[in-house]
Amino acid sequence: MVTLEQLCQRAREIAALANWPEHTVEQRTLYLVAEVGELAEAILHLVRQRQTGQEHTAALEAVGMEMHDVLWNICELANALNIDLDEAVEKKREMILRKVTKEH
Amino acid sequence: MVTLEQLCQRAREIAALANWPEHTVEQRTLYLVAEVGELAEAILHLVRQRQTGQEHTAALEAVGMEMHDVLWNICELANALNIDLDEAVEKKREMILRKVTKEH
Amino acid sequence: MVTLEQLCQRAREIAALANWPEHTVEQRTLYLVAEVGELAEAILHLVRQRQTGQEHTAALEAVGMEMHDVLWNICELANALNIDLDEAVEKKREMILRKVTKEH
Amino acid sequence: MVTLEQLCQRAREIAALANWPEHTVEQRTLYLVAEVGELAEAILHLVRQRQTGQEHTAALEAVGMEMHDVLWNICELANALNIDLDEAVEKKREMILRKVTKEH
Repeated sequence: MVTLEQLCQRAREIAALANWPEHTVEQRTLYLVAEVGELAEAILHLVRQRQTGQEHTAALEAVGMEMHDVLWNICELANALNIDLDEAVEKKREMILRKVTKEH
Repeated sequence: MVTLEQLCQRAREIAALANWPEHTVEQRTLYLVAEVGELAEAILHLVRQRQTGQEHTAALEAVGMEMHDVLWNICELANALNIDLDEAVEKKREMILRKVTKEH
Repeated sequence: MVTLEQLCQRAREIAALANWPEHTVEQRTLYLVAEVGELAEAILHLVRQRQTGQEHTAALEAVGMEMHDVLWNICELANALNIDLDEAVEKKREMILRKVTKEH
Repeated sequence: MVTLEQLCQRAREIAALANWPEHTVEQRTLYLVAEVGELAEAILHLVRQRQTGQEHTAALEAVGMEMHDVLWNICELANALNIDLDEAVEKKREMILRKVTKEH
């Protein structure tokens, strides 16, 4: 079971290992956008395979790989901004729970 | 420490509690895109606050909240497609590690 | 009939009139991303109105307004980079025409 | 000087010529998202070339090609929804002008 913190820690380790160049916060966000574009394309491919009744195991796996890349870029951005994703996720969850409970 | 699986499980529970309407895979991807747009806006606001030397605790927190929403939408999409995010993340991590180790 | 050049010229004029702060190329691209997110949301709203058989003139008009904002941000980015959109559009059109003609 | 209407008319002609499969409105929006991701990547490449003092004529041209693809997808989406882009652009322009004039 991967935790968000592990994912972000790994992003730090691999960035150090790979010796990637430094990026500004805006540049990191644009990398995220590029990955979201690739996820959109993988989704379109998967949907097409399904609609035409073709085997789509590989297309589904490709979607999972793109999802990783989006998560990874969120971690890289959180690392760069010193945002504790665990904390942020708990806080927003409570806000949503309050809202949903109030409405229902 | 939130695991990816917990995050996706919570998304399932809240969706059931909130009784949200069903969405196609394409529609779920568009919700993700809308959240990425909001994250981009929160990042622009944060950068502006920093550049003009203004207090930016609230702007930073807002970025964290938008990050949650992106993660959440990835979970919703993974749930809808029966993608095991943990598995996908491990698989892609190994691919990246092989690539990075080979290059360095 | 608005030409691309007029659209980009207007973007320049209004930017001067509004006295908006300067932005880097990355920041301008993030504004574009924010607008694409709003367009995605407007599309989701329109589709929902249509599916539930509700009147959707306002929802359709809102989509048009968001399309304007995307075009506008493309112009702002082209202006900042001194890209002649007319020229770019003609060039890419020829590439597509060659490709499509070859395939069919 | 290309007008928005010509751009959208050409999109219709090439779509007919290429005999592309039909797409839903959501799918067309996802194609737009994929192109915005490619534009983000082209921008990141251009910025990197500039920062490292490398020749960037090709990188700048690649950005123009991606801008075309975004415009094209906006046209395809407008065509599918019977949105008159010229009309939408004029309407939003007036709204912006009123707002900017009021503020200044």
